[in-house]
Amino acid sequence: MRHFTSVNDVKDLDGFVQKALALKKSPFAHKHLGENRTLGLLFFNSSLRTRMSTQKAAANLGMNTMVMNVTQDSWQIEIEDGVVMDGGKAEHIREAAAVLGQYCDILGVRSFPALRDRKTDYGEKIIKAFIQHSGVPIISLESATLHPLQSFADLVTISEFKKSPKPKVVLSWAPHINALPQAVSNSFSQWMTHADVDFSIVQPKGFELSDQFTKGAKIYYDQEEAFEGADFVYVKNWSSYKNYGEVGNYPKWMIDQSKLANTNQARVMHCLPVRRNVVIADEVLDSKSAIVIHQAANRVFSAQAVLKEMLENL
Amino acid sequence: MRHFTSVNDVKDLDGFVQKALALKKSPFAHKHLGENRTLGLLFFNSSLRTRMSTQKAAANLGMNTMVMNVTQDSWQIEIEDGVVMDGGKAEHIREAAAVLGQYCDILGVRSFPALRDRKTDYGEKIIKAFIQHSGVPIISLESATLHPLQSFADLVTISEFKKSPKPKVVLSWAPHINALPQAVSNSFSQWMTHADVDFSIVQPKGFELSDQFTKGAKIYYDQEEAFEGADFVYVKNWSSYKNYGEVGNYPKWMIDQSKLANTNQARVMHCLPVRRNVVIADEVLDSKSAIVIHQAANRVFSAQAVLKEMLENL
Amino acid sequence: MRHFTSVNDVKDLDGFVQKALALKKSPFAHKHLGENRTLGLLFFNSSLRTRMSTQKAAANLGMNTMVMNVTQDSWQIEIEDGVVMDGGKAEHIREAAAVLGQYCDILGVRSFPALRDRKTDYGEKIIKAFIQHSGVPIISLESATLHPLQSFADLVTISEFKKSPKPKVVLSWAPHINALPQAVSNSFSQWMTHADVDFSIVQPKGFELSDQFTKGAKIYYDQEEAFEGADFVYVKNWSSYKNYGEVGNYPKWMIDQSKLANTNQARVMHCLPVRRNVVIADEVLDSKSAIVIHQAANRVFSAQAVLKEMLENL
Repeated sequence: MRHFTSVNDVKDLDGFVQKALALKKSPFAHKHLGENRTLGLLFFNSSLRTRMSTQKAAANLGMNTMVMNVTQDSWQIEIEDGVVMDGGKAEHIREAAAVLGQYCDILGVRSFPALRDRKTDYGEKIIKAFIQHSGVPIISLESATLHPLQSFADLVTISEFKKSPKPKVVLSWAPHINALPQAVSNSFSQWMTHADVDFSIVQPKGFELSDQFTKGAKIYYDQEEAFEGADFVYVKNWSSYKNYGEVGNYPKWMIDQSKLANTNQARVMHCLPVRRNVVIADEVLDSKSAIVIHQAANRVFSAQAVLKEMLENL
Repeated sequence: MRHFTSVNDVKDLDGFVQKALALKKSPFAHKHLGENRTLGLLFFNSSLRTRMSTQKAAANLGMNTMVMNVTQDSWQIEIEDGVVMDGGKAEHIREAAAVLGQYCDILGVRSFPALRDRKTDYGEKIIKAFIQHSGVPIISLESATLHPLQSFADLVTISEFKKSPKPKVVLSWAPHINALPQAVSNSFSQWMTHADVDFSIVQPKGFELSDQFTKGAKIYYDQEEAFEGADFVYVKNWSSYKNYGEVGNYPKWMIDQSKLANTNQARVMHCLPVRRNVVIADEVLDSKSAIVIHQAANRVFSAQAVLKEMLENL
Repeated sequence: MRHFTSVNDVKDLDGFVQKALALKKSPFAHKHLGENRTLGLLFFNSSLRTRMSTQKAAANLGMNTMVMNVTQDSWQIEIEDGVVMDGGKAEHIREAAAVLGQYCDILGVRSFPALRDRKTDYGEKIIKAFIQHSGVPIISLESATLHPLQSFADLVTISEFKKSPKPKVVLSWAPHINALPQAVSNSFSQWMTHADVDFSIVQPKGFELSDQFTKGAKIYYDQEEAFEGADFVYVKNWSSYKNYGEVGNYPKWMIDQSKLANTNQARVMHCLPVRRNVVIADEVLDSKSAIVIHQAANRVFSAQAVLKEMLENL
């Protein structure tokens, strides 16, 4: 693995899950690997879980971590090539990436989409520029369209909680008050369609995800029908891909206990942060069905598996 | 000690002071204790001394520290239970605390009061929620009503500078332009009334602290009378507890050299930051009477004593 | 070296360059030196390179680093002595510096000029207050008037790329849309006039730097004339020293390939961040003439040489 920006960077998905689980058992067994190695974490956007779990993963491997909040600590960064930089942006991504590549052995980058222009967001200019100009391995800490560290942790969690070899997993759209990226949902779909699970997606009409990520999934428009017999219900809001960035006004899609009645005692998943009683009801989050904290805990070991493989290849 | 949120978490106050002083002599003697242990520091508010002294204490013990500025780095956090989270707050404290507890072995939390509603502030919801939901030991880095790391460092400083076994200590209200929390003053009162000192408090009428923290202290309303023979004068502004959050307009309560004339060559203390020539005059802060920098220095060892005891019990 | 705030703190300039180059070859050879030592980095202003390169340098030496962003993480700091602090600033630099000196073995401070009053800026009150009140060695991370870590890295870079024993180095003013400090240019001039190079400065009339830093440099007002036979062209904007803070409107001073025609295949330098197609054209930055990334890389080793010498003297 040179970079880690999607499931396509993983050769043996099941083997990779096993590696993460082995690290969960012995998190400090490879502490020599990161000696004299520096991880740079670059945030164009807020982060709690990703920031702290990746720092923890690096520490477990003996790495030094440097965190940079682009908009607070540093200069605004120009992404476009060929422009006359006479506006608010003081540094070009070509220099920023190349310089960070001089200071860090591995770079993690978080950069959300603006949700204004689909082609721009799906072009993934920022993460691509870091790959092109930094000269070091790049880890996506959530890009405009994908969040592979989250999806990897989700798959690890499913493998821990599954009661059958090929569990039924359903990704369900849920309500939200803001326009959210499709990244977590795209990414989860991409990982599930590569994993050994029975995968479906359910959403209101007009909220279908890009089929470049959902190919192979069963598509539903009715939660009750989709949830029948489900082992895992992954709940997540996303704004429309079709009417790009549109927020859906479907409050009845919130997940409460009654929605889970016909599942196979489904475990409920969410990447967090979750707005209680908007996306998922208190009664579900405070029940044993919810495994959202386990997902968050596994973020450490998914990040650690990625870092370990990169360190071994440096 | 499971958590550290008030003097009540300390069993043997004098023994604990001795432990801090021993750490001051040999700060690196227990560097193995923190190996592979992570301290999370969560700031809902600004911090200089607490942030840096606690990081330093953790480093002295060989711990890894992760710092999170809630309002800058992460999402706004909902504190109330049962609410429909359709406003500005994206994450509930139940998830935030539980997740941080997965990433950190010990958590420090700073959260100031809003000073709008006394019952809300004195309910200490945030620190209690972290105790309830994180699953790990919690250290108060100053809560709505108490600042025990500061008071512990203050007691350590008094034990270093005292000239008699039971020194006379006076806490004096002082002027300020803003409405400040009562936390430092409540906490100092609580620690002093548990320590082997002769303790008084002096403030203008209407600025009495809550008697849950001052029980056992002598109460004065006249600085001259209160300061007579004092070995230590602890200067601090606080807004009114009675007329909750009211700022007192008593500029004459500022501490200058003339105020110290009838003391027993009193040492002058303050938790910092201090507004010069509003709270304390330059002539006092720049004299040998002031031991404010010693107090700040001792913050490292009070934090280190707390962390050490927690690490030994993990 | 007690402090590092200008070239005057370096006794043997060539020897110091050799030390930095030795550290570049073996960055981890002195990792024991920083054991149990803490570097504090205090930023009154934004930083990317300085922040990360200095952290990296400290890590290479085994030091613990604590970073503090003054305006975000902490309180606003009063610089003036004798004032009544009843405004927006909650802490005086006397206390802030003294406290930080208790927590850190070495302190780095970044503080830009306000560019409103020349006498104030050139008085360098902040860096001087830290030297006076902190009690520990101070490193300038760019002060109001100088940026010695940058200039030292620049000199190291020149020594790596020079093709003759005494290369011709030209500092050229370049356009910008904002009023920028003179610090990088003052500092580069100061280091070059102390180094074994043939040094000139070229700028529009009215943009001459203070001669306290440029003494010994040849002064030009015509880029073509100045660049003739140059081995290195150091490009940088600065606002006027004479009409203090004035932005020059001379877009034709931008550096493109045609400007370099009569140089001795000059290497083009800049401290970064650089506004492309305003200060330097894409065609130059994307060519092999540009060595700006090498300069940035050498920031680690210039900082490391400074820290190493300070650690050896603690």
